[in-house]
Amino acid sequence: MKNKKIPEITIMRLSTYSRILNESLEKGEKIISSKGISTLTGVSPDQVRKDLAYFGEFGVRGIGYNIEELKYNISKIIGTNRNWKIAIAGIGHLGGSLVTYPGFLARGFIMAGIFDVKNIGEKYGDLYVEHIDNFEKIAKEVGFDLGIIVVPREVAQNVADIMIKSGIKAILNFAPVMLEVPEHVEIKNIDLSMFLEILSYYMSLKHNEI
Amino acid sequence: MKNKKIPEITIMRLSTYSRILNESLEKGEKIISSKGISTLTGVSPDQVRKDLAYFGEFGVRGIGYNIEELKYNISKIIGTNRNWKIAIAGIGHLGGSLVTYPGFLARGFIMAGIFDVKNIGEKYGDLYVEHIDNFEKIAKEVGFDLGIIVVPREVAQNVADIMIKSGIKAILNFAPVMLEVPEHVEIKNIDLSMFLEILSYYMSLKHNEI
Repeated sequence: MKNKKIPEITIMRLSTYSRILNESLEKGEKIISSKGISTLTGVSPDQVRKDLAYFGEFGVRGIGYNIEELKYNISKIIGTNRNWKIAIAGIGHLGGSLVTYPGFLARGFIMAGIFDVKNIGEKYGDLYVEHIDNFEKIAKEVGFDLGIIVVPREVAQNVADIMIKSGIKAILNFAPVMLEVPEHVEIKNIDLSMFLEILSYYMSLKHNEI
Repeated sequence: MKNKKIPEITIMRLSTYSRILNESLEKGEKIISSKGISTLTGVSPDQVRKDLAYFGEFGVRGIGYNIEELKYNISKIIGTNRNWKIAIAGIGHLGGSLVTYPGFLARGFIMAGIFDVKNIGEKYGDLYVEHIDNFEKIAKEVGFDLGIIVVPREVAQNVADIMIKSGIKAILNFAPVMLEVPEHVEIKNIDLSMFLEILSYYMSLKHNEI
């Protein structure tokens, strides 16, 4: 498994599988087939088997996968078998909703720092909004793993530079601008309109077929 | 191009290209090479050329792409050369931030209806929150194209059913549950923690390499 480069789309599907495994566990189920995973996710059974085959033989042919074991193995692969500390910069509408996003904590991501240039001292959960100028100092105390950027595009690069200088190794960027980061830093740019555009593509395709 | 099934990951990249083409146009640029697109997006020049080749020959070898033309062709492909009317259900933290998300309108997605079971009559921009029970009636008047679901998971399927019954053909679902929809309806499930998990995967990979 070491050094084996897995396509990002596979990681995204593993993340989805993991979520439906949780649901199955909650229902008291113990075993799931690739066909069962397929029905719940819309991914073809072949693709499910192919995705899981990256990591060796988890299942038993003709029976299926032990849900608990599969969930554990996936969490080891995607790194959610441990907690990650998150610093978020930008506490506008979207930033505010991310801070309180219930899905993050459920998956082991702990909100550990909130930064902005205004509304300093405002409270979100157990955290207070800190000034971005104090980022490096606070990062030294807390040890952030991941940064989320939800600031205006004009200042996003500057915020990324501060995060990287403070030791952050991965950034989720919601600002609508491509950020430059050094090779050792992972970055994922999220533009929510991209998802609408995927749907728009499918709708146009259908429209053109008529 | 008709009926040609293009991988979703290509559509996502086209969406990204389109964004950087906008930025280049704003800077007054006229021509861009696949290498130029590559530098700005982090996608390899080969992949850029491969993605654009799905739609015929846009560029001129050795010179590059006319930015205006490429942008127009991509918008035709992904269907953003027209406007789509959106209905959103669920106006909590995340829902509220989506209603005011500046990126949607910029890409031709018009917020045309807001629904919930509480805070009825509250104003967002030009819109008032309507009760979900009035969805079908309002949909008949307005003609929604796309639905966004940001309600608790327990009621998400019910909301999806209402939307589909009212003629909506595509749904973006933020509720952490897999929704069942008929074949003719496109659905895209978004779990924001998935993006953190991709980063978590890369970080774990590096950690294991040490």
